Amino acid sequence: LASATLAPTRLQTPAVVIDRRAVARNVERLQSHCGRHGLALWPHVKSHKMVEIAAMQLAAGAAGLTCQTLGEAEVMLEARPPRVLLPSPIVGAGKPQRVAALAGRTAVTVACDSSACARELSAALTAAGAEVEVLVEYEVGLGRTGVRGPDDAARLAREVDALPGMRFAGLLAHPTPPAVEPRLAEACAAVRAAGLAVSRVSGGGTVHAVSAQRCASLTELRAGVYVLGDRATVAAGITPSEDVALTVRTTVVSRPTPTRAILDAGSKTLTSDPPNHPGLDGYGTVLEYPRAVLGQLSEEHGHLQLARAADRPAIGEVVTVLPNHACGVMNLHDTVAVHEGGGLQPQPVQARGRTA
Amino acid sequence: LASATLAPTRLQTPAVVIDRRAVARNVERLQSHCGRHGLALWPHVKSHKMVEIAAMQLAAGAAGLTCQTLGEAEVMLEARPPRVLLPSPIVGAGKPQRVAALAGRTAVTVACDSSACARELSAALTAAGAEVEVLVEYEVGLGRTGVRGPDDAARLAREVDALPGMRFAGLLAHPTPPAVEPRLAEACAAVRAAGLAVSRVSGGGTVHAVSAQRCASLTELRAGVYVLGDRATVAAGITPSEDVALTVRTTVVSRPTPTRAILDAGSKTLTSDPPNHPGLDGYGTVLEYPRAVLGQLSEEHGHLQLARAADRPAIGEVVTVLPNHACGVMNLHDTVAVHEGGGLQPQPVQARGRTA
Repeated sequence: LASATLAPTRLQTPAVVIDRRAVARNVERLQSHCGRHGLALWPHVKSHKMVEIAAMQLAAGAAGLTCQTLGEAEVMLEARPPRVLLPSPIVGAGKPQRVAALAGRTAVTVACDSSACARELSAALTAAGAEVEVLVEYEVGLGRTGVRGPDDAARLAREVDALPGMRFAGLLAHPTPPAVEPRLAEACAAVRAAGLAVSRVSGGGTVHAVSAQRCASLTELRAGVYVLGDRATVAAGITPSEDVALTVRTTVVSRPTPTRAILDAGSKTLTSDPPNHPGLDGYGTVLEYPRAVLGQLSEEHGHLQLARAADRPAIGEVVTVLPNHACGVMNLHDTVAVHEGGGLQPQPVQARGRTA
Repeated sequence: LASATLAPTRLQTPAVVIDRRAVARNVERLQSHCGRHGLALWPHVKSHKMVEIAAMQLAAGAAGLTCQTLGEAEVMLEARPPRVLLPSPIVGAGKPQRVAALAGRTAVTVACDSSACARELSAALTAAGAEVEVLVEYEVGLGRTGVRGPDDAARLAREVDALPGMRFAGLLAHPTPPAVEPRLAEACAAVRAAGLAVSRVSGGGTVHAVSAQRCASLTELRAGVYVLGDRATVAAGITPSEDVALTVRTTVVSRPTPTRAILDAGSKTLTSDPPNHPGLDGYGTVLEYPRAVLGQLSEEHGHLQLARAADRPAIGEVVTVLPNHACGVMNLHDTVAVHEGGGLQPQPVQARGRTA
């Protein structure tokens, strides 16, 4: 990582720095991969939350945007997506009405895993004279949302297809490593046996994005963090280190002992998210001091253990942290510093905090 | 917790709800305690980040506001604090100049634990014609910032006192349970033996706030989360359950199996902060279903295990989560819903995200 080139001396820390050229490379690489394999790419905006990056993804050929929350989708209309996918059940006071309003502004697909969810949505859509496509979410091992078993998938698909305001379009699953293909195929067969067409099967996850074509059932892919990269995607071999697009610049504010440095980036800058990859510990990698261990975070401080580091930073030195989880970091910051070769430009993270 | 009274049917979830009456009780209780024991209270705004709550704390008799970051302090000027304390070393490009500017608007105290930090601050203060009080931060066991040992404390105190723009005022430590008193007394004695007055000794931490008077050296106290309460302070017996002022309302969006419910509050709503109290696990307590285990968070989903719960929530039901760590939750949300008996009012969290 060419971190030294990101070191404008006037940047106040802690600060999230986004490398726009690396973003562009990441956008292009996965879009090309999907294009080669006939998969429609629906980038997940939850990772970056920035209208500008969403627009780059659409310009590169994305079929639509995946938005984890309605609030994200409403903000992302500014990027003029032709289609928006809400990949989780939308339930709760006011929410079905917002789906209907969204469907008046762009083509909307919603995932659904229960009759209760489908009926509430259908009622709101009907009242608004709106229509959405529906993917039945199918559980393939994460143990989160999704119907379990092909019979339940077929049953809900038929129910959805009969409801006004809804067109059943297919299935959605997460995550979708190649190993889940037999289960996806079984679910698709059950739905088809029930007399319905399965025109879309949506798979998800950056880690398995480059092997998505090995799930023969998939017609489309959702991926988010590929666009930025983080400690987990680098460790998994998904993001080449030169294509990491998000880093955190932080200042050494204290050196209380020879083996301890304190950074001005803590859990309110980096999140408390643990590293999502086997063999990693701590809260990030300090690029200039890779043998230093960012082993503990206070709210505004990172505790850096230097016992194994030959070189050690001085008070006032600015260092670069590759954080565990880019999506969580983006959601903490109203503004990031975007650079493209030369200087840094502050840019808003428009959908930050849009959890509702 | 009277969670049922917080359940306005039109609140869109997830949503942070603040009980203003509970805030007022918490403000009053610790202020009275400090008053009885002759301790000046400097509430820590990092926990709530709201100008309105800071103003309540000042109106109740706080000596000043403690602000973890310069950005927080700059926002909190709106509450018109007579004094602001920055309790950690302020280091980095542009920061000393901002301290000097702040000192032109209110009386500022800064903590310092190194010559490098002190000299940079002094230069900026001198250039601006400003002056601050300085507390030398003394390490008492947390292993974060702070000078170690009485000789180093005395040495830095003398250096600070000789620098222009700075008046050495005393020591600061965190956390300060009663057991640290011998070490604080030893450091104070060393500083006095070096010919300096120790007029202020600042202790910190909500958990030890009610025993702060047992540290005889302390003249003042910093505490933050006492004003809201969270799972850790309730478990520690610091916050009576009826005085919990922050909860998160969240909707059950899926019931994939009889023993699993999925909430629309995940790590982007609740943080990934682990419970900071022995014997607690998971990410929060669901008040209506206390035997349910919030054992796992995705970014926008809470995974609720219901195996041990006799009653189980239905899809669409809104439940109330007491989160692990109130400070982290406040820092995720631009707006909270404040209630005071009757309806809810959206209020901004003005200092959210002000990490720099």
